[in-house]
Amino acid sequence: MENFVFCNPTTLHFGKNALDGLKEVLQHYGRKVLLVYGKGSIKKTGLYDKVMGYLNEVQAEVFEYEGIRSNPVIEDVDIAAALGRKHKVDVILAVGGGSVIDSGKFISITIPVQHPAWDFITRKAKPEKAVPLICILTLAATGTEMNPFAVISKHDANFKDGYGSPLLYPAHSFLDPQLTVTVPRNYTAYGIVDLIAHCFEAWFGAGETTLSDRFIISIVQEAIKYGPALLKDLNNYDLREKIMYAATMALNGLTMQGKKSGEWGVHGIGHILSLLYDIPHGASLTIVYPAWMKHFQERAAGRIALLGSGIFNESLTAPESIKRIEDLFRSLECPVRLSETGIVTDKQKICETLGINKVSGSNYKLKEEDLGKIVELFL
Amino acid sequence: MENFVFCNPTTLHFGKNALDGLKEVLQHYGRKVLLVYGKGSIKKTGLYDKVMGYLNEVQAEVFEYEGIRSNPVIEDVDIAAALGRKHKVDVILAVGGGSVIDSGKFISITIPVQHPAWDFITRKAKPEKAVPLICILTLAATGTEMNPFAVISKHDANFKDGYGSPLLYPAHSFLDPQLTVTVPRNYTAYGIVDLIAHCFEAWFGAGETTLSDRFIISIVQEAIKYGPALLKDLNNYDLREKIMYAATMALNGLTMQGKKSGEWGVHGIGHILSLLYDIPHGASLTIVYPAWMKHFQERAAGRIALLGSGIFNESLTAPESIKRIEDLFRSLECPVRLSETGIVTDKQKICETLGINKVSGSNYKLKEEDLGKIVELFL
Repeated sequence: MENFVFCNPTTLHFGKNALDGLKEVLQHYGRKVLLVYGKGSIKKTGLYDKVMGYLNEVQAEVFEYEGIRSNPVIEDVDIAAALGRKHKVDVILAVGGGSVIDSGKFISITIPVQHPAWDFITRKAKPEKAVPLICILTLAATGTEMNPFAVISKHDANFKDGYGSPLLYPAHSFLDPQLTVTVPRNYTAYGIVDLIAHCFEAWFGAGETTLSDRFIISIVQEAIKYGPALLKDLNNYDLREKIMYAATMALNGLTMQGKKSGEWGVHGIGHILSLLYDIPHGASLTIVYPAWMKHFQERAAGRIALLGSGIFNESLTAPESIKRIEDLFRSLECPVRLSETGIVTDKQKICETLGINKVSGSNYKLKEEDLGKIVELFL
Repeated sequence: MENFVFCNPTTLHFGKNALDGLKEVLQHYGRKVLLVYGKGSIKKTGLYDKVMGYLNEVQAEVFEYEGIRSNPVIEDVDIAAALGRKHKVDVILAVGGGSVIDSGKFISITIPVQHPAWDFITRKAKPEKAVPLICILTLAATGTEMNPFAVISKHDANFKDGYGSPLLYPAHSFLDPQLTVTVPRNYTAYGIVDLIAHCFEAWFGAGETTLSDRFIISIVQEAIKYGPALLKDLNNYDLREKIMYAATMALNGLTMQGKKSGEWGVHGIGHILSLLYDIPHGASLTIVYPAWMKHFQERAAGRIALLGSGIFNESLTAPESIKRIEDLFRSLECPVRLSETGIVTDKQKICETLGINKVSGSNYKLKEEDLGKIVELFL
């Protein structure tokens, strides 16, 4: 095990009607609230009215930023941050899925400064304080609700990647699985594979921690057992609950303690597919992961076999494990080749953009040659 | 799953030479430090000098309370709290095992008040603030280093039990497995069975959470795999590390999220054996758990079989599981009957003290008749 210092300061409010606790939490902050959300689906579901009801009850002065896109962009962050800065908001309330919460995170560190959020990404500036962030999660997937990471895109720079700072932990996150019952079939599936991929990224990272490995297997087993069942029964609260809890635990630090690093090469490549073709994040991961494992199936043979044997609870070789994982993604109705999404392929363009974004992996280094071969394997 | 609100605010500093980070942490608190430790083993190992070195470097004014007993008593808490109150200490530094840290926790809430710590136990008073507590752990066992619980005894009231308050979370806990290498064979074993028993108490609690169940199995499997190996190789740092990490994760909230309650009936009975006969905590648990499971082997047949099958990774019935768990405790050189400790048995006295302490279980209620039968089974 590697040395580590760990504290996860996010308070998780989990369960049916968890939002009942929102009013009390809001009262610990000032009255000025920046409300951030997506393209209005929370208005259709009634969540917007419910949240506004709570905000009115605590006599909040609400400033709204509507229209965060999926695969969120840094331009929205700057505009929303300017709004928050102008009105000196005390707290940000982000209501939505990973895109909205990730944007909320960037907004929280951009409000206190006079430069664009992009300066954080380019390391021109380092965040030193943040406006407190409260999240209401409507999609079980990214785990952003309880971690210090955020993913953002900047199209004119051909950029999409993750960013991390301890200041990005939400202060509070409200997770009511009922809010995810309206998530359509495909995005439900993308969320399930996203949480599985987060476990894999920890698994293939550097540094051995046997107990963290067991936790990783546990979370993936949960997704394997209840994920396909949920796709057959989208209104099942109990299954929604299991997947929502698993998604949070898949990327809140638990799987990483004592490890030197995660891997994240597949996420790096997947982000580029999303950037170029607006492919949903989860789908990009199921396209890239089998190819990545095939490419590294000799070098990572032991780890791949151990992963497959662990999650499927039977003795499997590396190639057998890859096959079973591909089958799992298929059973979750996710693409395992880029062509399955209907995208006209362009290896050159993908490889160029991978280069611009310096996608290079971590524990399994990705040189130009590796990237080319992986792209060929998933086209 | 049950609704829950969760945040564990303790910062864990884990690994070889983790204490190197102590100086920086101390600087965030005031200069007046109440140093609490046991009967001087930290002086023999050199840890005392090392800690005093760090304290001198930050120019701390140190007030010492030496002599916390194992199976700690509330009288020590009151004396140490009076010392801290008199000198208006800014922070408590508890250096030792569970007894020292649990005492440190009670001291932290007793310093700010004018009444004895006992008033918290009897619910005459409720803690409203606490002096920050920093822990340096020297024994992998109780998990107190990252949770809001503490166990204390008061002999003239024939009392020993746990107590909980969110104020009891340590601010920081330093866990260097090297500090546990000097722990003798028997106490090493008691620590391993303590962490296993904590997992069992979560397992037999009320409310089903499939992912928490998987985490429980993971932690026990880790203890089963590396615990007996450690007893054969006490100086093995890697094994010390695995057990120390597992012990922390066994009782820091992870195993309990989404459950209605833990069980804790066995701990309740075990505390009474420690109170009456000064039996080490871990040994009291290996004496009581098999008897408790045998008594409930019909009512809890499903859960016992699932536990045994999970932790030993083979299909076992409830009686087979109990047998295997008893064998496991034996392989860890722990007693599974009271008589094995050489204690002259007295069922009546045990049952009376169980009654005085209102030991009654939680999910599996313990009536007088149940207690009598369990005592008979472990005599």
